Amino acid sequence: MALPNRVKIIDVGPRDGLQNEKQPVPAAIKVELVHRLQAAGLKDIEVTSFVSPKWVPQMGDNAEVMAGIQRQSGVRYSVLTPNMKGFEAAVLSKPDEIVVFGAASEAFSQKNINCSIAESIERFRPVVQAAVAQGIAVRGAISCAVGCPYEGEIAPERVELVARLMADIGVQHVGVADTIGVGTPSKVQRALEVTLKHYDIDHVSGHYHDTYGMALANTLASLEMGIWNYDTSVAGLGGCPYAKGATGNVATEDVVYMLHGMGIETGIDLDKLIDAGKFISDFLERKPHSRAANALLTKRAG
Amino acid sequence: MALPNRVKIIDVGPRDGLQNEKQPVPAAIKVELVHRLQAAGLKDIEVTSFVSPKWVPQMGDNAEVMAGIQRQSGVRYSVLTPNMKGFEAAVLSKPDEIVVFGAASEAFSQKNINCSIAESIERFRPVVQAAVAQGIAVRGAISCAVGCPYEGEIAPERVELVARLMADIGVQHVGVADTIGVGTPSKVQRALEVTLKHYDIDHVSGHYHDTYGMALANTLASLEMGIWNYDTSVAGLGGCPYAKGATGNVATEDVVYMLHGMGIETGIDLDKLIDAGKFISDFLERKPHSRAANALLTKRAG
Repeated sequence: MALPNRVKIIDVGPRDGLQNEKQPVPAAIKVELVHRLQAAGLKDIEVTSFVSPKWVPQMGDNAEVMAGIQRQSGVRYSVLTPNMKGFEAAVLSKPDEIVVFGAASEAFSQKNINCSIAESIERFRPVVQAAVAQGIAVRGAISCAVGCPYEGEIAPERVELVARLMADIGVQHVGVADTIGVGTPSKVQRALEVTLKHYDIDHVSGHYHDTYGMALANTLASLEMGIWNYDTSVAGLGGCPYAKGATGNVATEDVVYMLHGMGIETGIDLDKLIDAGKFISDFLERKPHSRAANALLTKRAG
Repeated sequence: MALPNRVKIIDVGPRDGLQNEKQPVPAAIKVELVHRLQAAGLKDIEVTSFVSPKWVPQMGDNAEVMAGIQRQSGVRYSVLTPNMKGFEAAVLSKPDEIVVFGAASEAFSQKNINCSIAESIERFRPVVQAAVAQGIAVRGAISCAVGCPYEGEIAPERVELVARLMADIGVQHVGVADTIGVGTPSKVQRALEVTLKHYDIDHVSGHYHDTYGMALANTLASLEMGIWNYDTSVAGLGGCPYAKGATGNVATEDVVYMLHGMGIETGIDLDKLIDAGKFISDFLERKPHSRAANALLTKRAG
């Protein structure tokens, strides 16, 4: 195995995670979570989303959360901006990076935003242009890159289309997201391979959900291809909107446990990370959705 | 990736799993579980243990369970026999295979059976000889092959020692067991590599626990070495005796989901397997410790 020596983790818990938790979380708790994540060594944190509070009430406090963070130098704070209106609001909060989304499924695009894949990406063009003009980094997320709740399995050609269109409009980095967690190692590798036709290995992330328990195997399969950027969610924050009651995002703790166990550096302090995950899990009145965190917390308790 | 085309699963749920569950399970339920596993296509089932009921009361009904099974041709029923007394009792139940255990940790051996690793294996010599003389297959389990609750990390040399000693006394097949689930892919591969010095690839199994969420990544790492035999436990039966409340054996459902998703044959019907897991989980009044099973059950429920 030729594996990377170090891995960069983007913790998407505050945004992608909390957005999919049922319970509302006050801004102060979100800010505290971000502070704990950066204290644990996280250098990339997806903080919030600038979308209409009509659609995503959980992120209605976006500006308040961004304003509340005591920023650390060297940490990159990213926000989701689905359109120009969101981007203009986001800019006031001075994000280091914005995130735009495109699904690799025609059915998903039609059903969710009533347009084709190509049209959905084209809509981001002015947002990406404006961000680039202001020196704000742009990350794209290719959702449903392996499976779709409406269409089932997704052909790699669809993933390649989204990657190509994102590259065309100037998106600098893309994440290949197994949004519903149905992917297995060989399928995930195929989705990454086609993405790598349009992006350099340094600009492709893996974003895996643990709904079916596959996320760490998929991470290993990606590491073996040299992929060294991963999106993960502290305490496995975020359920699966398409399988209520099921787990969603892979837990940062599980990924870090595996990487450290393989001698791969992350710059993250696993103990402090587990504390951060316990903090938000206690607030949500549940256990972390992380096997490593639960095993280590059990061990700590003696 | 050069992966096996097919994989053989030994379901150890009725023995290794139920032995580590707190709640006592009546013989009739165990028999029904075995029936459901074989109906799902399992060809290898670890049924029970012939140990003193003083030590393992959960397996006190061993003969009753073995007698209750309506055996299917082509299915191999195995039982654990720690000594000659156990073996003699087991033989009356006509098992197809017996299982003997050795830990790759001196501390574990001393603490649990008050002897060295070498002495612990030597004690099995008459059991193995008797089994071979009667045409009963012998499988060995190398426990604590990656980590030990007392000693921490285990050097591959300890694993190799157990493998060599087991080969010396005539054990035909060995399983490399990450008993406490702390292993990560590179460590598991090192334990397998040294075992392969003494056993052919067809006679080495992977036995992984999901306590830290690593089991499927470890399975993938093993598949990449050509390992095609795995011990798994339906519904993830079996806790971790060294971290109470934590999960133990990897769920058969999760492994089968991954293998089928990678186009690897198992001969197992995943839907029927999930039914078997739900049957025993309902009896234990909990959800299956399987992300794939829970996601698919949630999907079934609509």
